Amino acid sequence: MTRPHPHDPNTLFQPVRWEGDVATGYVWMLDQRLLPDEERALELRDHEAVARGIRDMAVRGAPAIGVSAAMGAVLAAREALDQPSDQVEPYLAKALETLAATRPTAVNLFWALGRMRGVYEAHRATAPGREILDVLHREALAIQAEDVAANYAMGEHGAALLGERTRILTHCNAGALATAAYGTALGVIRTAHRQGKILNVWADETRPYLQGARLTAWELHRDGIPVTLITDSMAGHLMARGEIDSVIVGADRIAANGDVANKIGTYTLAVLAKAHGLPFYVAAPTSTIDLGTPTGAGIPIEERTSDEVTRVKGLSIAPEGVTARHPAFDVTPAALVTAIVTELGVARPVNVETVRAVSGR
Amino acid sequence: MTRPHPHDPNTLFQPVRWEGDVATGYVWMLDQRLLPDEERALELRDHEAVARGIRDMAVRGAPAIGVSAAMGAVLAAREALDQPSDQVEPYLAKALETLAATRPTAVNLFWALGRMRGVYEAHRATAPGREILDVLHREALAIQAEDVAANYAMGEHGAALLGERTRILTHCNAGALATAAYGTALGVIRTAHRQGKILNVWADETRPYLQGARLTAWELHRDGIPVTLITDSMAGHLMARGEIDSVIVGADRIAANGDVANKIGTYTLAVLAKAHGLPFYVAAPTSTIDLGTPTGAGIPIEERTSDEVTRVKGLSIAPEGVTARHPAFDVTPAALVTAIVTELGVARPVNVETVRAVSGR
Repeated sequence: MTRPHPHDPNTLFQPVRWEGDVATGYVWMLDQRLLPDEERALELRDHEAVARGIRDMAVRGAPAIGVSAAMGAVLAAREALDQPSDQVEPYLAKALETLAATRPTAVNLFWALGRMRGVYEAHRATAPGREILDVLHREALAIQAEDVAANYAMGEHGAALLGERTRILTHCNAGALATAAYGTALGVIRTAHRQGKILNVWADETRPYLQGARLTAWELHRDGIPVTLITDSMAGHLMARGEIDSVIVGADRIAANGDVANKIGTYTLAVLAKAHGLPFYVAAPTSTIDLGTPTGAGIPIEERTSDEVTRVKGLSIAPEGVTARHPAFDVTPAALVTAIVTELGVARPVNVETVRAVSGR
Repeated sequence: MTRPHPHDPNTLFQPVRWEGDVATGYVWMLDQRLLPDEERALELRDHEAVARGIRDMAVRGAPAIGVSAAMGAVLAAREALDQPSDQVEPYLAKALETLAATRPTAVNLFWALGRMRGVYEAHRATAPGREILDVLHREALAIQAEDVAANYAMGEHGAALLGERTRILTHCNAGALATAAYGTALGVIRTAHRQGKILNVWADETRPYLQGARLTAWELHRDGIPVTLITDSMAGHLMARGEIDSVIVGADRIAANGDVANKIGTYTLAVLAKAHGLPFYVAAPTSTIDLGTPTGAGIPIEERTSDEVTRVKGLSIAPEGVTARHPAFDVTPAALVTAIVTELGVARPVNVETVRAVSGR
């Protein structure tokens, strides 16, 4: 059975939160670009600062981006109070556009902004501005709280899929840092660890941004969960030698047919898992499921700058004049995914019917 | 048809060479750890310095390691001249052991030292020490010259396998820097480029040591061959999108059945190539074929230090206290290799008969 949670949810590690009251507060955002060397937070007091935090990857991870954008929308609504009355709605619309334009792949961004817009539209005819601001603030906090709860539920559903003395591989960071707290893939690993099931977590370092080395290793080491770092090129070798039992990753967007967009390198792991007969699990809240996109072919894949590949921590690793490609995500076809774990249950096998059923829509 | 070589072989870029005469000369070794930032060479005047250069990876690449070790044996024979006559043979035997103990996977090291030992044994009964030294020096230069010639021959055999407007992926560095000159996999690419066949070379950066980013990109950019850098995690995505036509790599050791040991990450590329129906080529001189090792299971895989994964250019990329695995090589089963290209021809399909036939033994 699951042992008690080591942390009260209120003291859980959260990468983004609202500090203070709605009228004078701000968005506190851990600057993940500095981890693990430094734990320093940004204090974001307007929606443009939140948009910058998302675009420049101070925060990353689909659910955490969604929470950040929702809180950015609260700041935008507060800023709108200072506008002439005929400018309130255009101001807010433009702010939501700015927040939406930060990153293209993670659907939670659009989902969260859609919720905030929906709440605004439901109240704008009847409530005065300050009341709407309160409602929006409560909605953002609800998005955050629901994400934490979803991660706990996913943890239970996902851990049930794992065997004893599991040696599990994960890619990128689908942890507390990528969500409101606790994590999706790492949430499953945390719950499995409390159940005594984890022998070792293999953490892919996840070039170019090194989220695995910098963030996943940091989270797991901090929690006392056994973790061994590898380069992204080692997973195949370790699978061939029988040192990996399963793979679990998060997702940035899941299409209606179960195709999964996630951090670049995920697809390769899925091909390798298939070739070695290993289960390949995806853990993501239903907010990551995009029923409006039929297949992975419709998911936009963000291309980021060449410099993020040719430099590591600011140091050049390639000759002057050499350029790199930098697709930030890839798409794993549903056929390579053993199961999708959500807060509402598990889709297995993964197809258009099971994905719709598990989405709760 | 092949256009003329742009360089006379005498001005070819060589990572290791003998400078000066046999009595007072030394081994000049480009320190590849400093590339691409700095082109600085080591001047190695005794066999222990050569052993350090190999062990600490100032030089790397199976054929280049073989050439370096052969030149180290010349230095050892020169040092032995200063020993009391009953100590000459023990001194030399110990020196060859020191050179052999530097790295375990690349078979060219043992092959080159075996040739040097054979020449020594053929002459020790009849020739005085200084004459043997001359013979050994000539043998080391022959090993070097034969490797260059093998690479040109491989270039022709390999380029014939490639189509027009080829977009070819390579891993690690199997270039001039990994050989006596010209390269194995990059030798094939160089010849194909002279034939006008290369549209783009995708260079895997090849973590942890970044030989792709630091060395392959440097060599190709310098030669004006179009190269695009990617992280090791991107190859699968680019294959799925139809942006890669074939894969070519070098080898550190080829077992009798055609299993190929090469830089960690090679196996993953072979699995991906198979999954996408792309040819996967290995280019290596026959000195890399080890008929004494029946299958890849018998090839020792070097485990290097965790620090080489957790640090990039001396900068830590992982939290304090987190350790990494670091297998430096992996084994690709013969079944995943479309063809092995040697100086004596092409083994295709790859199996125990074709490998023996192409080995010339």
